[in-house]
Amino acid sequence: MRSEALCRFRPRALPTLGLLVAVVSAAAQSDPLPSWNDGPTKTAIVNFVQETTTPGGANFVPPEARVVTFDQDGTLWVEHPIYTQVMYILDRVPDVIAKKPELRHVEPFKTVMSGDHAAIAKLTLPDLEKIAAVTLAGMTVDQFNAEVKKWLATARHPRWKRPYTDLVYQPMLEAMRYLRANGYKTFIVTGGGQDFVRVYADQVYGVQPDQVVGTAAETKFGYDKHGRPILMKEAKVMLDDNNAGKPEGIHLVIGRQPFAAFGNSTGDRQMLEYTGAGSGRRLMMLVLHDDAQREYAYGPAEGLPDSKVGTFTQQLYDEAKAKGWFVISMKRDWKRIFPFDP
Amino acid sequence: MRSEALCRFRPRALPTLGLLVAVVSAAAQSDPLPSWNDGPTKTAIVNFVQETTTPGGANFVPPEARVVTFDQDGTLWVEHPIYTQVMYILDRVPDVIAKKPELRHVEPFKTVMSGDHAAIAKLTLPDLEKIAAVTLAGMTVDQFNAEVKKWLATARHPRWKRPYTDLVYQPMLEAMRYLRANGYKTFIVTGGGQDFVRVYADQVYGVQPDQVVGTAAETKFGYDKHGRPILMKEAKVMLDDNNAGKPEGIHLVIGRQPFAAFGNSTGDRQMLEYTGAGSGRRLMMLVLHDDAQREYAYGPAEGLPDSKVGTFTQQLYDEAKAKGWFVISMKRDWKRIFPFDP
Repeated sequence: MRSEALCRFRPRALPTLGLLVAVVSAAAQSDPLPSWNDGPTKTAIVNFVQETTTPGGANFVPPEARVVTFDQDGTLWVEHPIYTQVMYILDRVPDVIAKKPELRHVEPFKTVMSGDHAAIAKLTLPDLEKIAAVTLAGMTVDQFNAEVKKWLATARHPRWKRPYTDLVYQPMLEAMRYLRANGYKTFIVTGGGQDFVRVYADQVYGVQPDQVVGTAAETKFGYDKHGRPILMKEAKVMLDDNNAGKPEGIHLVIGRQPFAAFGNSTGDRQMLEYTGAGSGRRLMMLVLHDDAQREYAYGPAEGLPDSKVGTFTQQLYDEAKAKGWFVISMKRDWKRIFPFDP
Repeated sequence: MRSEALCRFRPRALPTLGLLVAVVSAAAQSDPLPSWNDGPTKTAIVNFVQETTTPGGANFVPPEARVVTFDQDGTLWVEHPIYTQVMYILDRVPDVIAKKPELRHVEPFKTVMSGDHAAIAKLTLPDLEKIAAVTLAGMTVDQFNAEVKKWLATARHPRWKRPYTDLVYQPMLEAMRYLRANGYKTFIVTGGGQDFVRVYADQVYGVQPDQVVGTAAETKFGYDKHGRPILMKEAKVMLDDNNAGKPEGIHLVIGRQPFAAFGNSTGDRQMLEYTGAGSGRRLMMLVLHDDAQREYAYGPAEGLPDSKVGTFTQQLYDEAKAKGWFVISMKRDWKRIFPFDP
């Protein structure tokens, strides 16, 4: 086949080939991170990509090893006033009570049903886990997916009155796309529920289900009353994908040490340490929520108030500085926060 | 950019682009499965690929959903006279005894150290699990990988006197490549150890670590004496990737129902049932070891003798026939068995 003929040949199996070439070509000519302000953080991302993808360079990473991991809550999307998945499980409680009325007068369900926002806000993590166990289990994976999809279509964030899936950070979407365009596989490594995040990860982040690592309950394979195979969601947690659970989950699902990792809280510390422990060039970044006007400001680092979610402690901040991890200031580093105009 | 210039443009991020086009182009013109004899089995694979990848067709599967799963032992490589990983753990025993001499006189270690082949062959599954727990745990993931690599380099199969990694089925390698060339992600879903298989899966099958689902022990993130992050392998099994564990493991790691699944024993039954339960066109295949001359003949189906490993029972055979699963006869369907000439 002559080279010109080869060029015109469009294999059926690769319908997006032309598009890919066009995208990569355009990316090479324009700013791949238009929503990032110029500065050391943006430069660090661009330098990391260039150094690790330049063949023959000292820090070249072969394509198959290009793995980057992203925490979700507070790193890719808004986690205030409370994790989206917690909103979901609280909203599910009335349905659960309808099926199991005996729970109505049992804590913590009683508090949720009271509608007392102040009391609900004071629920502890064990309370929430109890609710999660009951609301997320006892159905098939397919039923769960359908439930979450339905909820996402109607639920609105209290501040922006928009679907939660709109409240993703445009600069992080650009970083994910830029890394993917350079051969990196982008994995989400979330403390949130793996099945929950998988429902919208493709649509929202362009991340396929096999590239979502998250807190996972056991499933149980069995048969329905017609003898058809089903997977039931069980109440028993198999992988708690927080803190040390993040590198453990990365090993279980990905099986490679990441070359870059993005997080925003103490729950991401071990993931960044694990990433940084690898040889060669690595990139570790933490999002600091210091923009009360456009998003939120929380965490004791830089004197900001502490928070129930996404704790960015002074200790984490000190470790970041000591180890050369980059702290992304939402206020200074991000030209815009969301894909929409608020 | 003119189309000719676009053609010459070779984006840095896609160094294999030209290669991909060449491979797909060549595949379109020649037989993608040269080691398969013509017949219903080969035709079924080709038809499945064509039907599920033809845009606009009733059974078209979008590229992101193209998932196919392969059992390993007995499906992709030889499992006789005993699983390769069992050979590995038995070979590891002297090293373990050197470090823990108190085990020398404790069963089942005593039997292994006796060198009595007949007695060793009679070890039960719980015996082997006891040995596995001791030989596979208590080291870091990196140490384990190095150990396995070292062993694979010197260990030889008793019949062919070749490295175990040579004893892969050429027709299955072709099926994997053919599916990948048509946009399918090829996952290994093995009852064997996930970390064990990952060591050679890329080199042998072209399968990356994140596409290996296997029986997995817990790992524990911590720090070595220099404060460097490490992942230790623990003795506790987290995922038993056999039988019902296969669809459960597929959900955990892949998060999508496969469109095709290949196995060879009762341990693969639920994986094939789960695959077949999906809507649209699906392909389920079981390798039948009926070729004593070129490989082995075992399993009661078609009157062959039963076996300790890879049991292909009459019940499984009946289920395959009833559900339209294809039975691959090594003897009739495979022109050659191995990549090498025996």
